[in-house]
This record gives sequence, C-alpha cells and structure tokens, in this order.
Amino acid sequence: MSGPVLAASVRYAADGAVEILDRRVYPFEVSWVRCATSEDVAVAIERMVTQSSGPLFAATAGMVLGAREARHDGPEQAAARLRAVGARLVATRPTNNHIRDAVHAVLAATVDRSGEGPPAGDELVEAVEAAARAHEDGYRARSAALGRHAAGLLDDGTRVLTHCWADAFLIATVEAARAAGKRLEFVCTETRPYLQGARLTAATLVEMGYRPTVITDGMVAAALSDGLADVALTAADRVTLDGHVINKVGTLGVALAARAFGVPFYALIDAPDPQAPTAADVVIERRDGDEVLHALGTRTAAEGVTGYYPAFDVTPPHLVTRIVTERGAYHPNNVKESL
Amino acid sequence: MSGPVLAASVRYAADGAVEILDRRVYPFEVSWVRCATSEDVAVAIERMVTQSSGPLFAATAGMVLGAREARHDGPEQAAARLRAVGARLVATRPTNNHIRDAVHAVLAATVDRSGEGPPAGDELVEAVEAAARAHEDGYRARSAALGRHAAGLLDDGTRVLTHCWADAFLIATVEAARAAGKRLEFVCTETRPYLQGARLTAATLVEMGYRPTVITDGMVAAALSDGLADVALTAADRVTLDGHVINKVGTLGVALAARAFGVPFYALIDAPDPQAPTAADVVIERRDGDEVLHALGTRTAAEGVTGYYPAFDVTPPHLVTRIVTERGAYHPNNVKESL
Repeated sequence: MSGPVLAASVRYAADGAVEILDRRVYPFEVSWVRCATSEDVAVAIERMVTQSSGPLFAATAGMVLGAREARHDGPEQAAARLRAVGARLVATRPTNNHIRDAVHAVLAATVDRSGEGPPAGDELVEAVEAAARAHEDGYRARSAALGRHAAGLLDDGTRVLTHCWADAFLIATVEAARAAGKRLEFVCTETRPYLQGARLTAATLVEMGYRPTVITDGMVAAALSDGLADVALTAADRVTLDGHVINKVGTLGVALAARAFGVPFYALIDAPDPQAPTAADVVIERRDGDEVLHALGTRTAAEGVTGYYPAFDVTPPHLVTRIVTERGAYHPNNVKESL
Repeated sequence: MSGPVLAASVRYAADGAVEILDRRVYPFEVSWVRCATSEDVAVAIERMVTQSSGPLFAATAGMVLGAREARHDGPEQAAARLRAVGARLVATRPTNNHIRDAVHAVLAATVDRSGEGPPAGDELVEAVEAAARAHEDGYRARSAALGRHAAGLLDDGTRVLTHCWADAFLIATVEAARAAGKRLEFVCTETRPYLQGARLTAATLVEMGYRPTVITDGMVAAALSDGLADVALTAADRVTLDGHVINKVGTLGVALAARAFGVPFYALIDAPDPQAPTAADVVIERRDGDEVLHALGTRTAAEGVTGYYPAFDVTPPHLVTRIVTERGAYHPNNVKESL
C-alpha cells in the first residue's frame, strides 16, 4: 500500500536525475521538477519547489548528485567539491536546520570521516548514497517515534487545528492515532501566501480518508472562540534549547488564540537544535515581499504597495503547551532534556 | 478635486438605474454592476458586489428604485410594496446594521411618517429620494466627525495596522490626520477570502498618496511582535452597548496580538447599536464555505475539503483600547454614553 504522495516527494529518475514534487502547485498539478545537478537542487529549494521536510530529502539527494559530479576528482578535490555543494545547499534557506543537519551528516560519514582518508570515485558516490539513505531512514524513524508521542496527547474524537504543513510529523501522528483506534477531525488554516494548509495538509488528509475543514489564516481566533477545535498542532522548523518555537509565520497568532481560548498548543519537531540556545540564535528568513502580493501566480494586491514576508515567526515558550520530539512530549522549559 | 474611487461607489445612471462598483474585483477591474430593480440591488448586496459602507448606499438606492416601482400604486399598496422592498434589503446580510438603519430611516420619513397619510406616485418617489439623500448625507457627516476624533488618537508619524476595509471611516481619518499635518504609514492585512485589505484599503491609500505595506492575515502577530506598527485600527460592523466589537473575521486575532505586544487597538463606528445590548444580540453571518476555498475565482484548496466562513468575529471589550464614534473616542465600557 502506498502512502500519501507527499510522503515521498523527492525521487530519482531512471537516468539518475533527482525529481522533486513541485509543492507550489500540488495537488492542482502533480508536477516533478527535474534536477540534473546539485545546483539545480539548490535552486529548486530556494524557489520553494519543496518545503517543510522536503528540503531534507532534497539536500541528501543534492549531496548524492554532488558526489557523482566529483566522481572523477581526486580525494581532496572531491572532498572540497562536496563541501562546497553542501555549503550551497545550506545557504538556500536559513531558518529550518534540516538542510544543515543533512549536509553535515553526509559529510561527516564520508569526506569528513575520521581514521581514514576521504573516499573518491565510485567509493565516494557509494558512501554518499549510503549516508544519504541512512540520514533519510533516521529521519523517518524519528518521525514515527514523534508521531506515537504526539498521538498519545490526542483523545479519541479530538478536533485538531493545523497551520501550514507538518509533513512527515503529521502523517506519522495521524497513522499512530489511527493505529490506536482514535478518530480525529481536522481544521486546517489555508496558510498564505503559499497555501500549504489548503493544498498540502488538506490534500494529504483527504488521501488519508479525512474530510478537513479549511479556514483562512484570519479565522483562527474566531474558530477557537467558537469551539471548533480542541487542540492546535503544528510542526516546528526549529526549537531552541529554551523552548522557543520557530515555525511558519502565523504560528504565533495560532498560539496566542489557543492560549486566549484555553486550547493546548502542541509543536512537533524531531529534536530541539543544540546549536540554538535561544531565539536570537535563529535567523528568520525574510522572503521577497512580492510573494505576499500573489496567490497561485495571480496578483492579489493593488499596485503601488510593498509586500512584507517574514517566512517564520517565533512563539515564546509561555505560549507552548508541549513540544513533542522523537523522545516524548516536553514542557517547553524542559525541552533540552530531550537531547 | 475628486476623492478616492471607493468614496462614491454607488451611483445612478442617466436612465435611472443604480450602478454599484464591483468591489470583488476592484482595483484590478473597475466594473459597475447595473441594477435596474430593487431586487437587483438586493442580489448584488448578497453576492458581495459591495460591502463595508457600500450596502448603506446600495440600500438607500434600492429604496429609491422601490419607490419608482411603486409609482403607479395607490398609497397603501405603495407603502406595503416599499416595506417589502426594505425587508428584502435588510434580509440580504444580517450582521452590519447599515442596511437596517437606512431602510428604517427612509420608511420613517415617508410611508411610515406620522401625522399625514402615506405619499404615493411622484410624491412618494420624491420623498424617498429626499430621505435617501438625507440619510447618506448624515452618514457622511458622521464619518467626517468620527475621522476627526480618530485622527486625534494618532501622533505624527504613527504606523497604522489596518484589517479589511474601513471605508468612509478610514478615508475620513486619513483626511483629518492630513489636515492636522500628521504623517501616517500603513500596514494592511490582505483580508482573505475577499482580499479587501490588499485591494480596497491598499488601493485607496495609494490613491491618497501613501505606499502601504501588505501582509497576509497570518502575519499580524509577527508584524506587531517585530514592531512594525504603533496602533491597530479597524472599522466595526456593529458595536454593542457593552463594548463588544463585531467586525470582519480576523479582527479578534488582530486585537489579541495587539494586546500581547502592547499596541493600542481602535475600532471605528459611527455609533453603537442601541438595539444590541451585548454580543448575543448580534447575528454573525455564516457565508458559503466555498468562498474560503477560492481566491479571485481560482480554487485555492484541495478537493474533498469543506470551507468554514464566519464573515465576522466578536472582539470582547477587554481587548479594545478605544471605540471611536461620531461623538468621540470612548473606552469600550463607556461606549453607550456616545448615544
């Protein structure tokens, strides 16, 4: 049985090229962006072809392409090239640490391995492929563990408010809840400007057999005030050691409304970032303001205005009920214990 | 010198038909919906051709058309017909009381006038036209007074966050601030699903010489957390005697974020509703959920979902800094004193 389309949205074509599902147009179009080179992968990530956990899989695939591009280099030259590919991938988007960690994992297991010289040629390619696969498998296993912990917080019949697209974490949570015999209902914010909630979350939940309710981002407070949802549940792109949740812009408003109306707010992430003691250590990506002035390619705003687009916002720990990691559900003040 | 296009968005054609600017597509298209009958006007209001204070002017025009339709009736028949037209107009949209008040004013000054029998024929038409004009002029005068009081709350250089489209109240506030030599800047939420902020507010502010910043509805908390605005300012569709502010859905989230980040929240309305002691007395319009699943006519959500569309939300008095009426700026607990 195959899972939701978005559960496997980076793949290899028969000729070895990487294909990335274009999440900007899914589910209206099921279109795969072909990346023949590691640079193509970096550009695809920058252009938001994929997001959420998509960049993790795109980054490991980009490293595989980088290793193939270095197949005919000597060991030192190949190592330098692969590190440059990694740096290029990391530079694409600064806020989520999936790319950084994926690149680091692949480099650490291959050209930066200790005890032996860096591999080259076919050996390098095979080592990078194995490291990429291991990193992806680890992420999937951590997501599954996280999903079981998150499902443990949800009662049978819980109505869940989502924001944006929690990707593997959401799929794992839903699968774990279903395995435990718990029925769930969903209210999904549409999540402008890219509409990941209305498109990706909603489409995936429909694939999984639910019939979600979609609201605009401005309706969260009204929906919670009206008692439409019992919990608010989002992913986190980054969690700091002191419990700040950095996630798709709008999460802060969800958390404020949840607090105002007595609804628990749960944030899902495989682990907090050991390199981010607090929110000041996280770069919040500012994207091109023009993206705010369009919807699915159509101009939505009057001419003569400027768009403002912080891609993420920061929810302070006092607004977060629990942070669910692969290790369990933690009070935000204690989340560093999950490391 | 002509004002902004939206300052006069209901007009009479040379042949007597009513033309209503289609705010659903403005400013991308400047299209006037022609209404030959009072029923056409009612349908236009239901279909959101106009909103905010537009329905007030549409309702007075609808009553004028109703009087013309009754030109050949006897007095009692004409009165009954005009009352039916009024009831039809009032039934179009339940939350804002502009329509109800406009219909009541026209009826009270004509077929329901005391001391004399109801007018008929040309006398009826002329009386309704005069009553309609008087009601419109009164609204414009109240808006101008309100604008002066609102401008009094804004310092030179204030950065104003708007939500949806405050129409005559916003135009009057901006004109009064300008007359007082105060510079203002604006951050406008786009206000899904109809994008009144990105289209109507933004276009009108551009017409008036400003360069507003547009954000998505989910960015309000991030924008206020980032210090992007000094005050939050919206219209109110209805204010209850105990200070609840009923306005375009999303206002509650704006007020929660404003409170969380120490930003004053001002709501503009000509007067509280003497017929609404508290929020339970106001019908919150639930519109067709499909409207949430589209933007400017393009599908934005996956198939298989349900949209939920409360057109308004209720902001409790404890989240409102001041309610500005034609009489002045009131603490919400005291707003009934403005009657």
